[in-house]
Amino acid sequence: MRHFIEELEELQGRLLEMGSLVESAIHHSVLALVERSEEMARQVLRNEDRINHLEVEIDELAVRLLALQQPMAKDLRLLTAAIKINTDLERMGDLAVNIVERSIALMHRPPVKPFIDIPQMAHTVESMVRKSLDAFVKREPELARSVLLSDDEVDRLRDSIHNELVSFMQKDPAVIPQALDLILVARHLERIADHATNIAEDTLFLVKGVDVRHHLEPNI
Amino acid sequence: MRHFIEELEELQGRLLEMGSLVESAIHHSVLALVERSEEMARQVLRNEDRINHLEVEIDELAVRLLALQQPMAKDLRLLTAAIKINTDLERMGDLAVNIVERSIALMHRPPVKPFIDIPQMAHTVESMVRKSLDAFVKREPELARSVLLSDDEVDRLRDSIHNELVSFMQKDPAVIPQALDLILVARHLERIADHATNIAEDTLFLVKGVDVRHHLEPNI
Repeated sequence: MRHFIEELEELQGRLLEMGSLVESAIHHSVLALVERSEEMARQVLRNEDRINHLEVEIDELAVRLLALQQPMAKDLRLLTAAIKINTDLERMGDLAVNIVERSIALMHRPPVKPFIDIPQMAHTVESMVRKSLDAFVKREPELARSVLLSDDEVDRLRDSIHNELVSFMQKDPAVIPQALDLILVARHLERIADHATNIAEDTLFLVKGVDVRHHLEPNI
Repeated sequence: MRHFIEELEELQGRLLEMGSLVESAIHHSVLALVERSEEMARQVLRNEDRINHLEVEIDELAVRLLALQQPMAKDLRLLTAAIKINTDLERMGDLAVNIVERSIALMHRPPVKPFIDIPQMAHTVESMVRKSLDAFVKREPELARSVLLSDDEVDRLRDSIHNELVSFMQKDPAVIPQALDLILVARHLERIADHATNIAEDTLFLVKGVDVRHHLEPNI
């Protein structure tokens, strides 16, 4: 049996691998929309399989580590955090697929307006995914906190996209279906940001022992 | 130290308690919309606290059981499933809060149309939450499978609500903000159904040892 530390490192390496697949899926789901590239969209759908298989592998690895070893309290927390983070990453992959589905629908209809806010929102969200996983693997609380701050920016962007598109719909009812799809893309991005925020919160709990979920901690 | 079985039962009892709070939150978030009752909506917001605290308690209980005992493979699977289910329940509580926020916004504007599909969708979703948890606690695979079937019905209802509201918006742009809020309510309900589906899938994995996530199993 390999050393526990080594297996833990493999687990974290797999989570990072899954994270970079998810990040790439988000990036290309929005790029496919901007460039109207159905080929790129289809590629995101094909890559989804790898993310799903990684989820199963990581779960099995975590449970094996829980079973074969008798981990100390700190390692237990790490393993249960890994199980939660794994679920968050897989949901993000699903959300990238949801974005791609909207992107494909939008490609076949006239554009509502030039893309500015949605690519910017995607950029922020991708960076939140990367930072939240880096914070977890390197146990860097400051990096985790920066993810929590970005979540507020994402919410602002989503509101601004929402309001702008509502006014487009009111001016020209012909664009309603497209504008609705764009509103949903912004919502999916926001949900991905929420999952990155969960990872950052789990990391803070792991590193600092403070539970920042539900604002149970007075100052974060 | 209490017997392991007893502590496992407490853990499952807490999950059931959380499930019934979540079910009630969903029910009242939609009833507040139908009856335009701001008082009922505020009550859902107040109850959210209890759900959040239960999440933290259940997590701690599961990690303590992992740490203090040396659980067998089957109990390990149960404990890791409990950790995942806990997360799903907490997200459902968040989604009920999202619905309530839309309900409050909608109360102050003229109605788009009489409510038929949304209460029906809420009814189906509440029953999915209850069945998925019952299936988990009683280890009943048939009940878990019935939740997976209901998820298809929920998707159909969401599409029909979406399409109907789009046509209302196109006929009368004045209703766009309200119709959009109703589309979001249907989306939130659909996401709650997705979480119930996750619980049912985790239950099937636990009971039958088959992984129905990502359709890795040929026949379910």
